[in-house]
Formats: sequence, C-alpha cells, structure tokens
Amino acid sequence: MRSNLAMSEKTVPLATGLDVRRAARSGALDAPTSGLAPGYVQGNLAILPHDYAEDFLRFCQANPKPCPLIGVSEKGNPAIPALGPDLDIRTDIPRYRVWRDGKLVEEPRDIKSVWRDDLVSFVLGCSFSFEEALLQADVPLRHIALGDGVPMYRTSIQTQRAGRFHGPVVVSMRPLKPADAIRAVQITGRLPSVHGAPIHLGYPEQIGITDLAKPDYGSPLPLEPGELPVFWACGVTPQAAIAAAKLPFAITHAPGYMLVTDLKNAQLAV
Amino acid sequence: MRSNLAMSEKTVPLATGLDVRRAARSGALDAPTSGLAPGYVQGNLAILPHDYAEDFLRFCQANPKPCPLIGVSEKGNPAIPALGPDLDIRTDIPRYRVWRDGKLVEEPRDIKSVWRDDLVSFVLGCSFSFEEALLQADVPLRHIALGDGVPMYRTSIQTQRAGRFHGPVVVSMRPLKPADAIRAVQITGRLPSVHGAPIHLGYPEQIGITDLAKPDYGSPLPLEPGELPVFWACGVTPQAAIAAAKLPFAITHAPGYMLVTDLKNAQLAV
Repeated sequence: MRSNLAMSEKTVPLATGLDVRRAARSGALDAPTSGLAPGYVQGNLAILPHDYAEDFLRFCQANPKPCPLIGVSEKGNPAIPALGPDLDIRTDIPRYRVWRDGKLVEEPRDIKSVWRDDLVSFVLGCSFSFEEALLQADVPLRHIALGDGVPMYRTSIQTQRAGRFHGPVVVSMRPLKPADAIRAVQITGRLPSVHGAPIHLGYPEQIGITDLAKPDYGSPLPLEPGELPVFWACGVTPQAAIAAAKLPFAITHAPGYMLVTDLKNAQLAV
Repeated sequence: MRSNLAMSEKTVPLATGLDVRRAARSGALDAPTSGLAPGYVQGNLAILPHDYAEDFLRFCQANPKPCPLIGVSEKGNPAIPALGPDLDIRTDIPRYRVWRDGKLVEEPRDIKSVWRDDLVSFVLGCSFSFEEALLQADVPLRHIALGDGVPMYRTSIQTQRAGRFHGPVVVSMRPLKPADAIRAVQITGRLPSVHGAPIHLGYPEQIGITDLAKPDYGSPLPLEPGELPVFWACGVTPQAAIAAAKLPFAITHAPGYMLVTDLKNAQLAV
C-alpha cells in the first residue's frame, strides 16, 4: 500500500487530515491512505444502525486492545467534531464497503445514497499510528520495507461478548529482534488508543496459532534467525465480529482506505 | 533472603528507611534488608577514593541501565541528603565490605575506623524496587516465591569504558510467561532509575549466555514450558567493574545488605 505514497504526493499534496478528506470528498483521491498526511491519525470505520450501537459500544469498551474507540457520532449525524470540525463521514473516505445481512454488496466512493437517519458511526484507532512511532524510534518493520501488509491471525483468545458481537481476537504479527521487541513494547504501550502494547510474543501456539506461514489475513512474513514474533491486537477483530453478527445493514471503510483525522499521532501518547 | 522478613519484622518494626538506618546504626539490625521497609528504595553502595570518582561517575553516566545512580556524596562527606536528611553512610548499612587492591579484606558492621577524607559515596538503584512494582501488578516472580536469589550472567555486551572501569554487562534473569513479560517491560520501563526495561528476552545465546543452568552468580532458575527468559541489566555490573579495576581501596555494601533510603518506590516512575 505504501508504494502509492510517492505517486499520490506528486499529484496532490495531501499533507494534513483535512487535505485527504477534501480530496476524498471531491473524488480526486481514489487510493489507499497509507503514507498520506504523515503524522495524522488514521482510523477504521464502522457504521451501524442505532439498534446495534449500544451493543457495539459495549463490545469496544470490553475489548479496548482490538477495538480502541477514538470517535463516535450522534445517531443520524454524519459529523464527528472530535476528529475534525468539518468532517462528513458520508464522503470523506475514498472508498467504503456496504454490507447487507453480513454480505458485501458494494464498494462505493461515497455513501450519500445509502445514508439513513438511524446510523451511528464508530472510528477506531489503527496500527498505522504505532508503526509511525516505531519507525521514528528506528525499530525496523520489515513488511513496510518490503511494501507488504502484515500477516494477521485468528487466535484462541476470545473477545468479551456484548450482545450479537463476539468472536476471536485477531492479531497482527511483526518479527522483531529481542531488543527491538522490548523497545516496541515500551513505545506502543504508551499508545493505548491505537492497540497499545503487544498482547503476546514468542510462542504462537500459546494463542492458538499453529502455523505462522499460514496467516488468516494478509501475507506471510517469515521470521529471520534470532527474531521473535510479536503480536498486537488488530482492528480486523471488530470487522470480523460485525461480519459474524450478520447485521441487516452496515458500512465500513474498504481495507486500506481509512478515515484520516485532524488528530496527530504525537498527541496519542499517554 | 526474604525469609528473614517475618523474623525481622517481629523483633523490630522497621517500617521506614529511617527505621532501618537507625537499627543498622545502633547495631540492632544485622540481617539482609530485603523485605524491610516495604515501599522504600534500597540502593547498592560503592565508596571510592576521590582519584577514581570522576571516572566512576562517567562510567555510570555512560552505562545507565546497569549503573543507575540515585545519589552521590561530596568528597569526604558521609552525608547524602537527597537520600535521607540524617543519613550517615559510615554506619547506616548493616554490613559492609572493605576492599584493598581488589581483594576483600573485611566485612565490618560500620566503616568509621576506615573512613577517609578523600572518599566519595555512590548509591545505585537496585532491582528490589522494580520487583516490588512487578509483584504489585501481579506479575509472578518465581525466585521470590521460592525464597531464592535470581540467576545472574556475564554477557557478551560490553559496558562503555571510562578510565579504569570497564567489563561485561551482567544481567539478572527472571522467567516469565509472554503476556507477563510484556507487562514487565511496560512496568520496569517506567523505572529507569532502578535498571529500567529489560535489555533482552528470548534468546540467551544472542547475548553470550550459553547455558542458563550455569549462572555466573546466584542460583539457576529453570524455565517452565512456555516461559521466556527475560534479562535485566544488573547492579553486579559496577561491582565487577570495581573489582576488576583493582583499586587500592574501596568499600561496598555486603551482598543483600543494602542502604535503605527515604525515597519511595512509587516516586520513581517516569
């Protein structure tokens, strides 16, 4: 995904969250957002009918590592002022996914035609923020160097159920040398709103991962000698929980096409 | 060492650093200090002639993880007001070691008879403080449960030399389950004045440890299935550097007989 960065920056200078949202809104931007607006927090989107909103809020509250909520809208209101004063959730993401009865039905550029007055929007922190913090601290991330995605795995750890929402915790894996793994725990531990510290490292089988070469999502990333596999709770967890709940209607971002907010990554550290 | 706690507490209620120092000063206390004055910072002691003090200060500055300085005296002055207003370094530790030309010559109860006007005292943070923080967070420490010491190893990592002072970084090892190892990195990372985050975990051979069953100091502590060995920089590092420097004269605490200060462990977190 990051290979799009150079091209996007050449054609449109997208330096801030507002730049990216305006480019998505106007239709000028139709690309993944990785690498755009460096320093700005990007988020996962889930839009649900109000009937399910309370359960989903409780699900996120009970499972903060995979589901770190950074913004919630009022019912029927497409604004989320805490993430950007002018933000319009119906237009400000370059590509969406619309789900009916748990099935993907379309991938539109905006959701004005399917918007309803009973929808509630949820924005969750994502790993782009902590990866930026790791790279700034010279912790090497091989999947980025390779221009690849991270491998992700369904684990034997169960989320805490809330209403219809339940399922396994999904983790992303990054291979790190031991000293880098320690630094990574310290750095990401200060960022609880974007998944926080890893939930496991070293022994995949302890969390139900039998073969690192066969991720459930993404591409495999073999360990090099002397590296440890380090596992972070992943934003695919709530996506999988929403899909499994087979809601009559839901909207999410398309993978890699995130909401870019006005928050700065540097503001997130606790 | 912790098995002395109950007995010591029964005979003398040593609730504060001041209580412990007064009991050492009067001669009432002749026991290791582990478990005494819970919540108070205990420190390693090194007393060197002024001729070597500047090099040793530079050594500690350059190697803060094994040598976290928490107090330094003026030349010839037995007080260290920052660690306790009434502190007298010549009497306030229950047992000392006196070294001449690198050799241990006596283990006195006080050092008034060998005190000199050119001596400088250095107090370094110790692992008791971070172990207390780990136990408070329910991270289990088996060596404490067993009433044993930690195993310690000379590593292939070299300290940064300063004058006469040099040598390998010595580490202590604690076996932890992966999720506890992650918590331990987060908790001890906030305590840089008492060794801070681990410097390694998972692969002993990467830091020159060929056999965990044969520690260079302390007793072995076998890993249980699914545990990772977690390594912290250890206060034996400066002690070994001082011994190797073969100074004409030096004084240290006797192992386990620490200086108990007026600082609280809870004040250390950054």
